[in-house]
Amino acid sequence: MSYTTAGQVIRCKAAVAWEAGKPLVIEEVEVAPPQAMEVRLKILFTSLCHTDVYFWEAKGQTPLFPRIFGHEAGGIVESVGEGVTELKPGDHVLPVFTGECKECRHCQSEESNMCDLLRINTDRGVMLNDGKSRFSINGQPIYHFVGTSTFSEYTVVHVGCVAKINPAAPLDKICVLSCGISTGLGATLNVAKPTKGSSVAIFGLGAVGLAAAEGARIAGASRIIGVDLNSNRFAEAKKFGVTEFVNPKDYDKPVQEVIAEMTDGGVDRSVECTGSINAMISAYECVHDGWGVAVLVGVPNKDDAFKTHPMNVLNERTLKGTFFGNYKPRSDLPKVVEKYMNKELELEKFITHEVPFSEINKAFEYMLKGASLRCIIRMGA
Amino acid sequence: MSYTTAGQVIRCKAAVAWEAGKPLVIEEVEVAPPQAMEVRLKILFTSLCHTDVYFWEAKGQTPLFPRIFGHEAGGIVESVGEGVTELKPGDHVLPVFTGECKECRHCQSEESNMCDLLRINTDRGVMLNDGKSRFSINGQPIYHFVGTSTFSEYTVVHVGCVAKINPAAPLDKICVLSCGISTGLGATLNVAKPTKGSSVAIFGLGAVGLAAAEGARIAGASRIIGVDLNSNRFAEAKKFGVTEFVNPKDYDKPVQEVIAEMTDGGVDRSVECTGSINAMISAYECVHDGWGVAVLVGVPNKDDAFKTHPMNVLNERTLKGTFFGNYKPRSDLPKVVEKYMNKELELEKFITHEVPFSEINKAFEYMLKGASLRCIIRMGA
Repeated sequence: MSYTTAGQVIRCKAAVAWEAGKPLVIEEVEVAPPQAMEVRLKILFTSLCHTDVYFWEAKGQTPLFPRIFGHEAGGIVESVGEGVTELKPGDHVLPVFTGECKECRHCQSEESNMCDLLRINTDRGVMLNDGKSRFSINGQPIYHFVGTSTFSEYTVVHVGCVAKINPAAPLDKICVLSCGISTGLGATLNVAKPTKGSSVAIFGLGAVGLAAAEGARIAGASRIIGVDLNSNRFAEAKKFGVTEFVNPKDYDKPVQEVIAEMTDGGVDRSVECTGSINAMISAYECVHDGWGVAVLVGVPNKDDAFKTHPMNVLNERTLKGTFFGNYKPRSDLPKVVEKYMNKELELEKFITHEVPFSEINKAFEYMLKGASLRCIIRMGA
Repeated sequence: MSYTTAGQVIRCKAAVAWEAGKPLVIEEVEVAPPQAMEVRLKILFTSLCHTDVYFWEAKGQTPLFPRIFGHEAGGIVESVGEGVTELKPGDHVLPVFTGECKECRHCQSEESNMCDLLRINTDRGVMLNDGKSRFSINGQPIYHFVGTSTFSEYTVVHVGCVAKINPAAPLDKICVLSCGISTGLGATLNVAKPTKGSSVAIFGLGAVGLAAAEGARIAGASRIIGVDLNSNRFAEAKKFGVTEFVNPKDYDKPVQEVIAEMTDGGVDRSVECTGSINAMISAYECVHDGWGVAVLVGVPNKDDAFKTHPMNVLNERTLKGTFFGNYKPRSDLPKVVEKYMNKELELEKFITHEVPFSEINKAFEYMLKGASLRCIIRMGA
């Protein structure tokens, strides 16, 4: 297919969000060819993440519509734009909502993955090269979302936001590594770094938190304490290595005190995956003095303040934050895929639902009801 | 001398603080022999640290008098109590206000130096073994201070609070490693860990901050930005490797913004040595996103709250605190002494004054006036 469509506009199906909070509409869209440093991808599988729902609801930000959402996906390169040498048609890839230009200070730092050029930008609905969209319907531009817009059979992405992965890897499974699962997994493996036999508290048992628990399981933590306000989540969490559960509602004292009592002074590591400021503070204060490390993952509200007594800091607790699990998309995601391929990392348990593209709105319903961890959307179906 | 005095009460001079804020009085005191796991030291040199002054002024805590202050010192073991096998009379040592039992979870952790048994306790004025003081005057007990009480020709210290060091090292110089200088130096070398060529901001240019700057110089930092509200400190700071100065009073915007502008987004590392909550917050917010690490050293007030927007955390800034520069007293201080011996670490520049023991109150005056970094007090003089 690549030699017939390369350089041409492709007409295909996409799920367009015309208005905030209204069901997506499957439309025929035109997808322009990739420009310099861009690639056009055929998306085979995409999944739904809370961030899509958050910006689709558009309650907390300036709405940008019509827009094509979607940022967790797996696909195949259809064609590449000028200057793209690392990818060729047919390569299996994961598009990513953040990027790696490999040239800025962040990309050149071993410690950061917050690329200056391609760092997530939720306000921008166009491509960097010309400030325009590659999607249109009868000449009307449709905005991009975080540079990926995977709710479309074809999409155009900056080459720096595309990880080339093992073609033997099943795209219907590893597509979930594009965002949430890698975020939680990396928060534990790359940032919290629990040692074998250590104790880890995970705040929030949604998909990201369960991925953080999966990281703790892989690292060999002996106690993985799941904290969630919804006790219904505890049964499922056991599959992810969670050994003990705490529902803060069951106690009349702060959950950090409950955890300190359970663990003789605090856990070795904690990972917060809720976005609640109270959970962030509890996650910090529940780690042991001397060596405890707390890692914040959840995205807070804009008016939140993280507040703690400075003696908690002085007593040798470390506070860290992470973005996309500190993975550099192009350099590191292929290795995460290999962790799945060699059965170190289990992904099937994150995938609770699957729908054809035509029923994409069901994926939104599952998530809004809290019924799903990940719902895979099969494109071309 | 050791065989004649071992097991006997020693009568010697000590500087006794009878009341909060009143000049010390040189008295003849009786020093009981060391009990189990204790050693009796002959102190040759001691220096004055802010912590002595803070507890002598007793404005922020329950006063405990009469008391013998002093915790930065160098001396020689006079005799050892039951069960002490690591030290013998004649060993050159540094007594330390915190300890290392080598058995608790902290001592067995590579990451912590906050020994459960011997961690600093400023409220306790007695020895652990029997809950009594080893000092008395005509039968009246005189309280200890942080287990060291080095303003005495002889003192009794728990063996876990004594670092055995190279006998060739000059005690009149290395005595300053007992507290403040190691605290600042270790904050940089052990916790902030700047790499060669990196940028480091130091908040507070007193002795501890200058020791943090010395650590940055040793680590090969290329920019060392000193921050202090007193511009008079800047000239002296140059001797400690400080390359640039910022007085927050000279700007009408937060100092973290000033530093971010100077450094294209923030410094690689910062070390806060003031105890001011605003400096702590500025020190955190002035580090670069992606890789910046801020280390808090200063002891805050008990009602302070460290407050920052959680996005500062999410953007991959790390907040750490340290106690005694993360040095384990017995395991690590001998190596710091060697850094001085091999001329990697310069100590002479910290020593601005020297007085005989009989004029110890002058050392307090120098410090209260802000005239001294460290004033060495020669015992037996």
